[in-house]
Amino acid sequence: MSLPLFLVAELPVAGGFRLDGPEGHHAADVQRITAGERLLLGDGRGGLATAVVTGARKGALELDVEHAEHVPAHDPSITVVQGIAKGERGELAVQLMTELGVDRIVPWQAARSIARWKDAKPLERWRSTVREAAKQSRRPWLPEVTEPRTSRQLHLTGAVLVMHEEAAVPLSAAELPAEGEITLVVGPEGGIAPEELDALAAAGARPVRLGREVLRTSSAGAAAIAALSTRLGRW
Amino acid sequence: MSLPLFLVAELPVAGGFRLDGPEGHHAADVQRITAGERLLLGDGRGGLATAVVTGARKGALELDVEHAEHVPAHDPSITVVQGIAKGERGELAVQLMTELGVDRIVPWQAARSIARWKDAKPLERWRSTVREAAKQSRRPWLPEVTEPRTSRQLHLTGAVLVMHEEAAVPLSAAELPAEGEITLVVGPEGGIAPEELDALAAAGARPVRLGREVLRTSSAGAAAIAALSTRLGRW
Repeated sequence: MSLPLFLVAELPVAGGFRLDGPEGHHAADVQRITAGERLLLGDGRGGLATAVVTGARKGALELDVEHAEHVPAHDPSITVVQGIAKGERGELAVQLMTELGVDRIVPWQAARSIARWKDAKPLERWRSTVREAAKQSRRPWLPEVTEPRTSRQLHLTGAVLVMHEEAAVPLSAAELPAEGEITLVVGPEGGIAPEELDALAAAGARPVRLGREVLRTSSAGAAAIAALSTRLGRW
Repeated sequence: MSLPLFLVAELPVAGGFRLDGPEGHHAADVQRITAGERLLLGDGRGGLATAVVTGARKGALELDVEHAEHVPAHDPSITVVQGIAKGERGELAVQLMTELGVDRIVPWQAARSIARWKDAKPLERWRSTVREAAKQSRRPWLPEVTEPRTSRQLHLTGAVLVMHEEAAVPLSAAELPAEGEITLVVGPEGGIAPEELDALAAAGARPVRLGREVLRTSSAGAAAIAALSTRLGRW
């Protein structure tokens, strides 16, 4: 089994280190990691270190850092513009995409999004879901979750692909850039509105489909990331 | 938006048809589909028909079948031997795999499966999850969920790939057959035990990995199906 990963603000490169705060509490009191065990520290920006536990007390672990490395960011990166879906469905989408390697998530308050974000709580939930999923899958880079955007506020960059079940081109045949940014647009439960599709097409986005089946908003982004990862040689 | 799909025992090829029973109740009373609307009928064995509603009453719809077709089964097919996981995680795995195109699921009571299936209820839940997900994603073929198997009861056929995070070969580089059956083995939360890995290897299974990150048992099968679908030209 892989070593558990804990996130720290600044990664120690060697020597002694105290893991405290919420991560220290989780390691020492919840997971009950004790002296002699090993774990991973990550800064969420590519830095990863293995460490051995030299001491454990309530709320904190004393560590001896063995080895630190820096994992380069994915290139091309994958951004998903994710249509906001009802609570659980949206969080499931975010969790799956993080596990599978998304680099950046843009919450999209689309015309047909049934859920409307009225305060900061849903964004905080997406961010904490990303954090937990990134730890679970031992990701060296923590995906960014931007502020939510309306359709007018979307300023898409890089190669933009819109997941659409009526598209003629399969994702497996879409031209991909060798570097830079790939942006996938995934609609909400009710789909992408015609005027949104038109605006996306006018901005250079290309519609693509994934198979003959209908994918839900909670799995479409993750499925597309898996397909892209295969094509880009990530997997 | 795609037309909603309802499952029937025998697919009508043309003419009038009454949709009743649980599917008729769902269509007429829950989804409140009324005269003039259109829907899909499927037999779960490749048969699909479009129909227009000519009459609606409590518990049933009267239909006029417009067009019937038969969608061939996937070749090669994809079977996933899925390590039994705790309730929700197992059902999520089954749901995602069905949405993404799995053809057959073998529930695997692995050495490290924390959950033990003691009666028929968990199997029934997997089967109803498959049925709902297949309807949701408009799949013409309903994936089979076999009886649960222990490690000794696994009789693997076709090209067998074992998802393992320490494997040297990425799934994107694994040799795939052009036809027949591809079997993916996905361990439970605690992973595949060494003696199970040995037995699988002795039976000709090849270990493969998906990227550098750690995938959970609830998403590993779905991610692998997405990767395979891209390579096999399904997507």
